[in-house]
Amino acid sequence: MALVKLQDDAGAKPEARAVFDDIRKTRDTDYVNNIWRALAVHPPMLKRFWSYMKEVMVKDSRLDPLTKEYIYLAVSITNDCEYCIHSHIAAARRKGMDDETLAEVVEIVALANAGNRLTSGLQVEVDERFKPRFE
Amino acid sequence: MALVKLQDDAGAKPEARAVFDDIRKTRDTDYVNNIWRALAVHPPMLKRFWSYMKEVMVKDSRLDPLTKEYIYLAVSITNDCEYCIHSHIAAARRKGMDDETLAEVVEIVALANAGNRLTSGLQVEVDERFKPRFE
Amino acid sequence: MALVKLQDDAGAKPEARAVFDDIRKTRDTDYVNNIWRALAVHPPMLKRFWSYMKEVMVKDSRLDPLTKEYIYLAVSITNDCEYCIHSHIAAARRKGMDDETLAEVVEIVALANAGNRLTSGLQVEVDERFKPRFE
Amino acid sequence: MALVKLQDDAGAKPEARAVFDDIRKTRDTDYVNNIWRALAVHPPMLKRFWSYMKEVMVKDSRLDPLTKEYIYLAVSITNDCEYCIHSHIAAARRKGMDDETLAEVVEIVALANAGNRLTSGLQVEVDERFKPRFE
Amino acid sequence: MALVKLQDDAGAKPEARAVFDDIRKTRDTDYVNNIWRALAVHPPMLKRFWSYMKEVMVKDSRLDPLTKEYIYLAVSITNDCEYCIHSHIAAARRKGMDDETLAEVVEIVALANAGNRLTSGLQVEVDERFKPRFE
Amino acid sequence: MALVKLQDDAGAKPEARAVFDDIRKTRDTDYVNNIWRALAVHPPMLKRFWSYMKEVMVKDSRLDPLTKEYIYLAVSITNDCEYCIHSHIAAARRKGMDDETLAEVVEIVALANAGNRLTSGLQVEVDERFKPRFE
Repeated sequence: MALVKLQDDAGAKPEARAVFDDIRKTRDTDYVNNIWRALAVHPPMLKRFWSYMKEVMVKDSRLDPLTKEYIYLAVSITNDCEYCIHSHIAAARRKGMDDETLAEVVEIVALANAGNRLTSGLQVEVDERFKPRFE
Repeated sequence: MALVKLQDDAGAKPEARAVFDDIRKTRDTDYVNNIWRALAVHPPMLKRFWSYMKEVMVKDSRLDPLTKEYIYLAVSITNDCEYCIHSHIAAARRKGMDDETLAEVVEIVALANAGNRLTSGLQVEVDERFKPRFE
Repeated sequence: MALVKLQDDAGAKPEARAVFDDIRKTRDTDYVNNIWRALAVHPPMLKRFWSYMKEVMVKDSRLDPLTKEYIYLAVSITNDCEYCIHSHIAAARRKGMDDETLAEVVEIVALANAGNRLTSGLQVEVDERFKPRFE
Repeated sequence: MALVKLQDDAGAKPEARAVFDDIRKTRDTDYVNNIWRALAVHPPMLKRFWSYMKEVMVKDSRLDPLTKEYIYLAVSITNDCEYCIHSHIAAARRKGMDDETLAEVVEIVALANAGNRLTSGLQVEVDERFKPRFE
Repeated sequence: MALVKLQDDAGAKPEARAVFDDIRKTRDTDYVNNIWRALAVHPPMLKRFWSYMKEVMVKDSRLDPLTKEYIYLAVSITNDCEYCIHSHIAAARRKGMDDETLAEVVEIVALANAGNRLTSGLQVEVDERFKPRFE
Repeated sequence: MALVKLQDDAGAKPEARAVFDDIRKTRDTDYVNNIWRALAVHPPMLKRFWSYMKEVMVKDSRLDPLTKEYIYLAVSITNDCEYCIHSHIAAARRKGMDDETLAEVVEIVALANAGNRLTSGLQVEVDERFKPRFE
């Protein structure tokens, strides 16, 4: 159970309610999920994170929306964030990810976590050719 | 400096040299980078990780090669693995990633790490609708 | 459910019971919480961690008790330690932390986790002026 | 060495230069440190993180500036972010932190990291009294 | 609840069922635990990880089976992986670990996590004599 | 370079020098390594950590000294603590660890880090039979 009271529409402060409305509009849904209702305990925090999320994850950019979800998911799995894994797998499934592709993402995350520790355990030095050269 | 001696072709055991050759062939390059030369100190370890890497990252599958690199990179940045960040950014650049796309990947990783902690700090419970339902 | 049996006062070994008594006295409470009852499965482990905790967190020092709780909390959120987040938020609330201040702590933790990865993803080198100089 | 080219004032895009100017003004200094010059490779990323940092760390709020630095530092030490540890210890020293207080912060971070694992290793369940109750 | 459907013997694909059989035979048990039934959603992933696990953890090598479990457990506690902590404590108990030895493992993990952060917080440089020398 | 001045014998406070002497005596060596000289900036911190380390790592107990080093090392590799990896590999080598055994430790650490994320990515629930039962 969350450590702050989840704010429903009736109880939320006006600045928080405005963010809820923008979430609904941006995502074309009636549902506002728990993380936003928890952040609403301190409206400036809610506003800042929603705005950051919207600009990075929603706005058109070089990476397509599903690739962005995979990257977000890779971090959340590495950090074992139960809430984030659930919500971003749900988001990726809505955007078309099936079980097999989920398995691929999870396996790359596992492989990378293994590879990171092989390198760290042996303290392998970076190859000269991997170092950038700027004129 | 690595904590084990990097194995060059002359000094490596035959099973290790065979892996070096497969790396060269698979990647169409003459260069075998340091991580493989360090793992070669114990050839079964080298063989296992190369085989895992090859099957997950090289073999054709649903995810395209560049998306796989982004996922690997997202993990390596979250774990702050200097070697892995260098080698996988080099790999992604060879596959076409430019500075702006790199910036996008890095920023999603940062955002996700922030989001993971907002959720954790408030201990937000998973929404019922994010839980899977199997018949 | 804990992976070892929580030791109640009747079942605990004398060295463990002595620590329970010191916890009660130091904190001016009748309640001994679960972590201590779990550690009591191996009394030297209980004794060592309680003594470490008491010296670092309870003894008068430069940092005031609430600031210490914020630092402990920042680590626990970064590690996503459910037990520690619950117990140290409870402790901080008893010392006067309200919802808004909790939100501030959580948001700095999120920001720092983001900042850490921006720096790591781009492998930014330390500015000369940030390096210490000792004569 | 950073994996993107650090942008100096002459080479940076106008939107990036505007952020550099705001950093100088806000911090009352001529010096713009490396992290900002690296983020400038993608000006929207620079702008977003600077704005987040400024609102959370610089703006007046309940927590005083030095306490904020301790929290940021606790996260950076837990994540072992070399750049962030250097820059935020420098910032905290400018705000008055001496060696002994630094030692206190570091020791609480160490203690918390130990406590987090004791709890995790024994999988201790949260005490009922630590769970929040909202009417 | 798992985010993919756990595959029972009747529903699993033939390649997955073959792995289930090898698990039963290798471990001399009728029981196949949940992680394998989850991985079976994508049989190549199941096969790869089981083969990796079997070669590293089951095959005779320099380290004895219980020491291997302690190392696996140390990682799982540091990462706070609830499933892995439960399953590998169960495995270690079957191989003879009692409560007191579990406590010792957990306490070393806690100590090391503390020591890691003391070193990181003060950015202590590696002693010359700890650096390897290869002719 | 360390962020506090390493204390040599001449400059260290008497309480710190006493700890240096105990380190020399306990380890039967003249050499006091950098971590202790850095912690000496705040003698109570030095004293507490040395005493914790000595009781957990040096005192006779169920686990033998080399197994303890492997556990400490597993944590340090997972956290990528450069100093700790160097110093504890040096310590383990002095106690008899060769390259092949080091490789085994590192590979188990890599495997466990992979396994932890497979479990986390699929959010596998703990098997009933892995949950403890206390009468």
